Amino acid sequence: MLYLVGLGLGDERDITLRGLDAVRRCSRVYVEAYTSLLSFGVASDGLSKLEELYGKEVTVADREMVEEKADEILSEARESDVAFLVVGDPFGATTHTDLVVRAKNLGLEVKVIHNASVMNAIGICGLQLYRYGETISIPFFTDTWRPDSFYPKIQNNRRLGLHTLCLLDIRVKEPSFESLCRGKKCYEPPRFMTVNTAIDQLLEVEESRGESAYGADSLCVGIARLGSPDQKIVAGSMKQLLDVDFGPPLHCLIIVGETHPVEEEMLQFYLIK
Amino acid sequence: MLYLVGLGLGDERDITLRGLDAVRRCSRVYVEAYTSLLSFGVASDGLSKLEELYGKEVTVADREMVEEKADEILSEARESDVAFLVVGDPFGATTHTDLVVRAKNLGLEVKVIHNASVMNAIGICGLQLYRYGETISIPFFTDTWRPDSFYPKIQNNRRLGLHTLCLLDIRVKEPSFESLCRGKKCYEPPRFMTVNTAIDQLLEVEESRGESAYGADSLCVGIARLGSPDQKIVAGSMKQLLDVDFGPPLHCLIIVGETHPVEEEMLQFYLIK
Repeated sequence: MLYLVGLGLGDERDITLRGLDAVRRCSRVYVEAYTSLLSFGVASDGLSKLEELYGKEVTVADREMVEEKADEILSEARESDVAFLVVGDPFGATTHTDLVVRAKNLGLEVKVIHNASVMNAIGICGLQLYRYGETISIPFFTDTWRPDSFYPKIQNNRRLGLHTLCLLDIRVKEPSFESLCRGKKCYEPPRFMTVNTAIDQLLEVEESRGESAYGADSLCVGIARLGSPDQKIVAGSMKQLLDVDFGPPLHCLIIVGETHPVEEEMLQFYLIK
Repeated sequence: MLYLVGLGLGDERDITLRGLDAVRRCSRVYVEAYTSLLSFGVASDGLSKLEELYGKEVTVADREMVEEKADEILSEARESDVAFLVVGDPFGATTHTDLVVRAKNLGLEVKVIHNASVMNAIGICGLQLYRYGETISIPFFTDTWRPDSFYPKIQNNRRLGLHTLCLLDIRVKEPSFESLCRGKKCYEPPRFMTVNTAIDQLLEVEESRGESAYGADSLCVGIARLGSPDQKIVAGSMKQLLDVDFGPPLHCLIIVGETHPVEEEMLQFYLIK
């Protein structure tokens, strides 16, 4: 049996009772490292808090390991119960669909234990979840790669009066350009996009496209460390949010569409005065 | 302190450790009844499973109570710790924004403990969450009230190739028409819209609008009891799903937009052969 267990957003105590039951039942426990684990509350103490809570060893499975050793993980799951832990929900912003598809194709039973993810926890800012359009991802621009395929999506959402959730780039364990050239693997330090960088890039794209999908005065909500005790939520224009220090990762950004009174009542608590 | 605690989707063991800590700390515990509690795993045993787990009494707060007694709940929260439990996530499909706004306006501290909700747990069917457009709600049609304001929303989503989550009507503790006439409160039995009724209504609207936003051959995913051990997920055309018995509530429906290969790989496990 393969268990996919969502860990939620804050720290080790955001696992559900059902999730903890499953983990304690398993002979082998993996935790994904390749998306948001570094921002999870357990980061500073490594895995010790998780291992203490579960009463067993936890193996970090980074992107390479999941891609290269999926067969091994799945053959263990054929023999005994294996848990694969995912920050947020197993089917949240990051997909673990591939692992599930492979498991099911092998005839393995898969149980999914859900939890909160950024996709629903953003409801806390007061904007109604059913009034969001397509979610976009904003990648780090480089000198030579400045993709703006998110622009028409934001445009469509705003024409329909809908909010846009912007997921911001996470670069963990990226092979460095130099190391690729030398043929051996060295990694860049992890990078997380801030709300400020996201807005910088958005405004650059608006300037070059010039179709007024949004602008420096567009109302946005910046969120850092959603679901953690020290989460930070600030609403204001893009221009205003450029100067806000949101602190440590993870960050995300919402471009606000048309608002209803009940949404405005809640947003006011987060507005820059 | 007011705690808003998400209970998740399955049963009493879907609460998080952090949520359970909060509930056990509180002197008063309310649980919402007015959306989906009847479908929650605890329904058949009343509240006893919740009370047993929490080690304290739980008060059911139906819609009337929350609206009429919000001041009372909030003044209790001023004196001591009060928990308000919500099936799913506190800011999921149903909004508890109003209670939070009132609490904050009174200067009360509010802590939100997130959990899975239908808005993110639908990821399990394989359709990527970031490829959904605006979420729609389908209300029960009556002889004289057949609103179709969801139609242009589906149309917009499909033009953009996006999936549409349809939340289906729940009628709990609705005053009966007769009782309203007599000036005293009697309630209709609770009603939950099935996937079949939703599709019936959708096809009726398409027939009268005739703009081919979708049709009997459009691919959909019907989901019942999402997140419960006995959840049922079936993918097929609207016509095919009309004949599927999804069993007890809650149901929801997804109208599938354009699909990517990774989505198709996962969907195949649910397709009617």
